[in-house]
Amino acid sequence: MLCEQSWLQTLATAAGIRPPPWRYTKMNKTRRISDHWLRTILTALYERREVTRAQIVRSTQLNVASVSLALKHLLSRGVILRIGTLQSTGGRRREVLKLNAEAGYFVTADLEGESLRFAVTNLVGDIRYRWAEDIEIGKCLDIDRVADGVQRLLDKLDHLERPRVIAVGISCPGYVEEGAHVSAVNLGWTRVPLLARLRKRISLPIFLEGSGRIAALAERWLGVAKNSDNFVYVVFGAGVGLSGFIDGKLLRGFKGLGGELGHITIDPDAQERCNCGKQGCLEAIVSSSSVVRQYLASKGHGHEMLPRARLADVFEAARRGDSLAQSVLDRMQEALTSALSFVTIVLSPEVIVLGGDLTSGEDLLLPRIREGVLRNIPVSLRRPCEVKMSALGLDIGLKGAASLAFHESMHDPKLLREICRPPLERHS
Amino acid sequence: MLCEQSWLQTLATAAGIRPPPWRYTKMNKTRRISDHWLRTILTALYERREVTRAQIVRSTQLNVASVSLALKHLLSRGVILRIGTLQSTGGRRREVLKLNAEAGYFVTADLEGESLRFAVTNLVGDIRYRWAEDIEIGKCLDIDRVADGVQRLLDKLDHLERPRVIAVGISCPGYVEEGAHVSAVNLGWTRVPLLARLRKRISLPIFLEGSGRIAALAERWLGVAKNSDNFVYVVFGAGVGLSGFIDGKLLRGFKGLGGELGHITIDPDAQERCNCGKQGCLEAIVSSSSVVRQYLASKGHGHEMLPRARLADVFEAARRGDSLAQSVLDRMQEALTSALSFVTIVLSPEVIVLGGDLTSGEDLLLPRIREGVLRNIPVSLRRPCEVKMSALGLDIGLKGAASLAFHESMHDPKLLREICRPPLERHS
Repeated sequence: MLCEQSWLQTLATAAGIRPPPWRYTKMNKTRRISDHWLRTILTALYERREVTRAQIVRSTQLNVASVSLALKHLLSRGVILRIGTLQSTGGRRREVLKLNAEAGYFVTADLEGESLRFAVTNLVGDIRYRWAEDIEIGKCLDIDRVADGVQRLLDKLDHLERPRVIAVGISCPGYVEEGAHVSAVNLGWTRVPLLARLRKRISLPIFLEGSGRIAALAERWLGVAKNSDNFVYVVFGAGVGLSGFIDGKLLRGFKGLGGELGHITIDPDAQERCNCGKQGCLEAIVSSSSVVRQYLASKGHGHEMLPRARLADVFEAARRGDSLAQSVLDRMQEALTSALSFVTIVLSPEVIVLGGDLTSGEDLLLPRIREGVLRNIPVSLRRPCEVKMSALGLDIGLKGAASLAFHESMHDPKLLREICRPPLERHS
Repeated sequence: MLCEQSWLQTLATAAGIRPPPWRYTKMNKTRRISDHWLRTILTALYERREVTRAQIVRSTQLNVASVSLALKHLLSRGVILRIGTLQSTGGRRREVLKLNAEAGYFVTADLEGESLRFAVTNLVGDIRYRWAEDIEIGKCLDIDRVADGVQRLLDKLDHLERPRVIAVGISCPGYVEEGAHVSAVNLGWTRVPLLARLRKRISLPIFLEGSGRIAALAERWLGVAKNSDNFVYVVFGAGVGLSGFIDGKLLRGFKGLGGELGHITIDPDAQERCNCGKQGCLEAIVSSSSVVRQYLASKGHGHEMLPRARLADVFEAARRGDSLAQSVLDRMQEALTSALSFVTIVLSPEVIVLGGDLTSGEDLLLPRIREGVLRNIPVSLRRPCEVKMSALGLDIGLKGAASLAFHESMHDPKLLREICRPPLERHS
């Protein structure tokens, strides 16, 4: 391109004609740095945090000139930073680069559980401000409370921070239909047009996703599944759900209905009837409330004590040597191992992450589940498959929503350019 | 771009200078039609067969001008054909286009089963020539026999057909490591460097894939899963394997070890020990040889009759009212239903395709499996999930390998351009 242009300029000068300058400036400045390069490089920096130019070239498979041009552009706008140099084996110094985590912010909301949680995060999901308020489980939640929460955080930002907010990411319980409608028993919602309603109140781009998939995003980019292309996240609470990445792609399935691990029939002869109406579902045996119920029933207590006891209490009893608690947990561990073995054999994950209420029983359950899953894989198919507990705690929804917002922004040319604009030009 | 060029030409003519013509011809002819447009349009035509321009624009999400330019290019080279016009509701006539199936050929080979099968297929997998020869199961197969078979078919082609062969696609039993090394008990191979060895004999690009994934490609593009982004293919024979597409991506899993459905523990109390050494694997209960063995044992026959009896004989006996055959098939159907229910709940496929030896028992098994899988899905999660028998028969490997070769060629810029070159300029 350069070659033609200089030929052109020589020619134009020789002929005394002034070529149309802006078209060429545009080709030069805008066309030459493609969205694809920016997206690929920023995503690589998001995933790997601190990298050298050579690592970027290797991991993105872009050519050296494209990477060089795009890095120059990103450095000049402060979207990435030079953080030092490495002495390479050949003695040549290699520049280390990282994403400027404060180059943009997201507002995130988590509607799962007993409170509405809001946060302002930076580009890489670190929480900068937060806000939470209680909700009543099962009572219809007013959408304005979600919009108010987002607005409250936006109002907290000063005039330098506010223009740097790129988008809003929201983690929803229940079923999110095509990123727009939400059905969730906990919120008393049936096909509520959350996206459309929020858009009337909030002028920023908004992205919604189910809490299971949000958790998988959080674990992949910010948690223990560390950039793995193949892992599953299994969450335990009132229900049991599975999400994860298969061959680098977020598992959804036809109509987004994949991952309902809680409803596989794990013991057709089990007494417990699942909330779904079926007999012997995994969820009916291993969900937190079911384990608590089994424990209380074995102690001769009725359902009246249920609201006060938690899964952590059963773990605590087992640690104290309570044999009834231990036998309830034995059954839980057995059912869980079967289910995770199925998943491992069919999907071949590199990592299985367990989250939710189970994390407080790591010492009791993890070694036995690990050993059980390994035993269920035929010797010839054995390979490393780690079983780990999630370490993101209650912030998993807020951090995952930030990860959703980052990745969605990368695929929206307007938002991608917004992130790459110098801060003071934003939203102009 | 047009604008600059005409300005440039005017300028050059005015100044009496001849611009370097080839560089501009190259910009004009090659640069302006990007590989991405060609790949996207050809893939859309491969998938949908007969389409209008408007449908191409809609399905590819390319802009109208790009589609127009690329279609003109492809039409001029005979890679796509005009096959008629549709009268639209507005009265405007719409051109219907299709891929010229004879614009290129692939040589394919299938190493699965009791014979080596070879074919020349056209672009869309129709078989034009074929060749087969017997092999001895379990005895080490000489790689030269594979190369000879490919060469034999290439020799059959005339001087007009030969230059139109784009690539070679091969379906391998066992485990294919990174598209290069093959381990297969049937062929007596352990990490055989098939790709490297074939490359020494065959000058065309070669693509290898395991037979399960090859079958999934065949079912998606040429079989009953018709372009579905979410489906699984379950094959029955000496073993039981699963392959398929999840959210538009071929299931592989970590280290390519996903899909080993045969080794999920379906009945821990089952007497049968699986070849893998575990107790109660699905494969040990429902594989063809196991079902035959169970039937013969129930009749009081020993293993000595095994080589002569086939699963189809058990189906035939059940149709004649043989209650022993029926009860063996009942057990098979029950185990299979459990496994498929599990897959349906976790992956949410739109279609389940059953293939291999099971196809001859469609009348006996399909209605009951359909009904059983549906019953195992909670009412609130029910959606259409079809269970179908594969209809591709013994050609599934050859056709799937053609589909592999087509899709891999689309992603190789050199091969993509090769398909888009006028036939007489090929391999020049």
